[in-house]
Amino acid sequence: MSSEPDFAFFSIPPSEVFRDAALARQRTLTKPDGSLGRLEELAVQLASLGPDGAAASRPAAAILFVSDHPVAAHGVSAFPAEVTAAMTANFLRGGAAAAVAAASLDVSLSIVDVGVAARYPVESRAPHISFRRDEVANFPVGDLTIADALPSPTLAASIRAGRRAVAELPAGTRVVVLGEMGIGNTTVAAAVAGALLGCSADAIAGPGTGVAGEVLARKRNVVAQGLARVRPGAGPAEVLLAVGGREIAALVGAAGEAAARGMVILVDGFIVSAAMLALVRWCPAARARLVFSHQSREPGHALVLSALDARPLLDLDLRLGEASGAFAALPLLDLACALHHGMATFEDAGVPGKSSA
Amino acid sequence: MSSEPDFAFFSIPPSEVFRDAALARQRTLTKPDGSLGRLEELAVQLASLGPDGAAASRPAAAILFVSDHPVAAHGVSAFPAEVTAAMTANFLRGGAAAAVAAASLDVSLSIVDVGVAARYPVESRAPHISFRRDEVANFPVGDLTIADALPSPTLAASIRAGRRAVAELPAGTRVVVLGEMGIGNTTVAAAVAGALLGCSADAIAGPGTGVAGEVLARKRNVVAQGLARVRPGAGPAEVLLAVGGREIAALVGAAGEAAARGMVILVDGFIVSAAMLALVRWCPAARARLVFSHQSREPGHALVLSALDARPLLDLDLRLGEASGAFAALPLLDLACALHHGMATFEDAGVPGKSSA
Repeated sequence: MSSEPDFAFFSIPPSEVFRDAALARQRTLTKPDGSLGRLEELAVQLASLGPDGAAASRPAAAILFVSDHPVAAHGVSAFPAEVTAAMTANFLRGGAAAAVAAASLDVSLSIVDVGVAARYPVESRAPHISFRRDEVANFPVGDLTIADALPSPTLAASIRAGRRAVAELPAGTRVVVLGEMGIGNTTVAAAVAGALLGCSADAIAGPGTGVAGEVLARKRNVVAQGLARVRPGAGPAEVLLAVGGREIAALVGAAGEAAARGMVILVDGFIVSAAMLALVRWCPAARARLVFSHQSREPGHALVLSALDARPLLDLDLRLGEASGAFAALPLLDLACALHHGMATFEDAGVPGKSSA
Repeated sequence: MSSEPDFAFFSIPPSEVFRDAALARQRTLTKPDGSLGRLEELAVQLASLGPDGAAASRPAAAILFVSDHPVAAHGVSAFPAEVTAAMTANFLRGGAAAAVAAASLDVSLSIVDVGVAARYPVESRAPHISFRRDEVANFPVGDLTIADALPSPTLAASIRAGRRAVAELPAGTRVVVLGEMGIGNTTVAAAVAGALLGCSADAIAGPGTGVAGEVLARKRNVVAQGLARVRPGAGPAEVLLAVGGREIAALVGAAGEAAARGMVILVDGFIVSAAMLALVRWCPAARARLVFSHQSREPGHALVLSALDARPLLDLDLRLGEASGAFAALPLLDLACALHHGMATFEDAGVPGKSSA
């Protein structure tokens, strides 16, 4: 096992002053106090996380990290490994779910290739989509069943790739939507989450894109082999070195950079949540900047969410990844902010408040 | 008890042909089959309900029926009865939650006064908001604890008011968002739902806008008195006559008209759901045109949803009414439709499908 590299993460804490002001405003709005439930909580959270006390969900930007994985060779996915490259091209042309959702929600989308094995066309590009193949895509990786998945320089470069993608977002971005795509990456995420949570392969590894029976058994066996290679109680760097993936480490770096810049991170499903679990182990303060969008169908997701004390906004039986659940949740943030700033107060509207009776 | 008037409701059935075509299209899109969960189901449902096989959530229009209730005099709400008029003015000026949400989501909003007791200013009006005081607002109503709440002509006029509001929507409206506001109307809705479901006042009546203790006990007592006045096994007309409210009957009429015109009805919380329960008792075929937006915090809502075999899209602890939950869900319909029509197919994108392994 390589020695654990040192990564420093920092998160701008929420403002108690802005939080209190937002809570006070909520109590003056023309509705029974608390009657907008989680939309009120969201508005207050967003206000406490911004630089100015405003509850804002825009500008929002999405980043998808895409990568292949040596474990795909074990036949752990319902899809062949060539799909990673073909889907990357599909993102760039605007035909994949994430690309359609981003256009529909008026969100810019950055596709960052951090390790796609095969070549794919990059010329034809939808206007809201930017693209970069990061240098880490050429760094060596290992098969987590027998070797370190991310040798130390690869891990460091993956985290740098994530940081860079966030650093390149337009100034003033308030919410960053994080997602991923890569054949085999629920297997890798299960190994990462299982190692961080100390749970078994059977508990943490599920159907992913839709495997069952023999393939699922093979997947669980792969995860078990990975888990057996991780020292109990290992920290996040050690876990990512041993069983991580480049897009998962890039998600850690991206969220870390977003937290350091005071953005809000809208978290997608199982794989992004596993990466956030790693980040929060490094930097517990970053937890305050995470908004969990949805509970996916992947059974391990509930374990990760529970460890992060997260109650996601949506439960729509999604299991696609590609930030699809985060995109689905973004309009709730928009609505929460619109209500927070747009509603009249009891005083302005001349509406009587609660009876004293 | 007055004799039950006859109301005829009709609902255009979903198209099996459009449903099958939409299902077939979903299977060709570049994602694992079923991986977009309820967003796929929504797209298929919307496609099956439209006139042309397209999955469409727009144009969408919202209608809020507002009314006062004699039961408010029993002190069943956290707010005084004058709030109904003050909030109606707040809708018209654009300051209430429904008005802000409608503007934010680019939905036209019709406010229909079907029985507000006090006067309120109607001059200053936000541009996306239309308003009518329906003739039924001047019809007599009763205190459901001791008399028929909606005498037969009032019930008929209320249902007409709802039909008229839908008939006046722009041609081509695909989704109608239904909501309500009126101090005391969770009490009335509890009586309606309790009578239709045959359940007790304690089971069906909850905190509404936020009552507890003595006020909640009083509210449950009012509901119990209403329920005692309804013949067991009474049909929806008899129930509405005995314990209904004008906005609840108007919601029945509006949804009935929308179903007859082939629209999709996006259902808000407890009160709208209670009205939909009445409609479905009259016209079981209308059930297919209802999309349930959210599970509210009102405990009786779960009973109504269960009776309608409905699994709502959202669970955000809302308890405001005003179509707030339906507005929150509308972007999910938008996204489902955008994905259904905008995503590339495996063939178009040259993406390999599932491994045969």
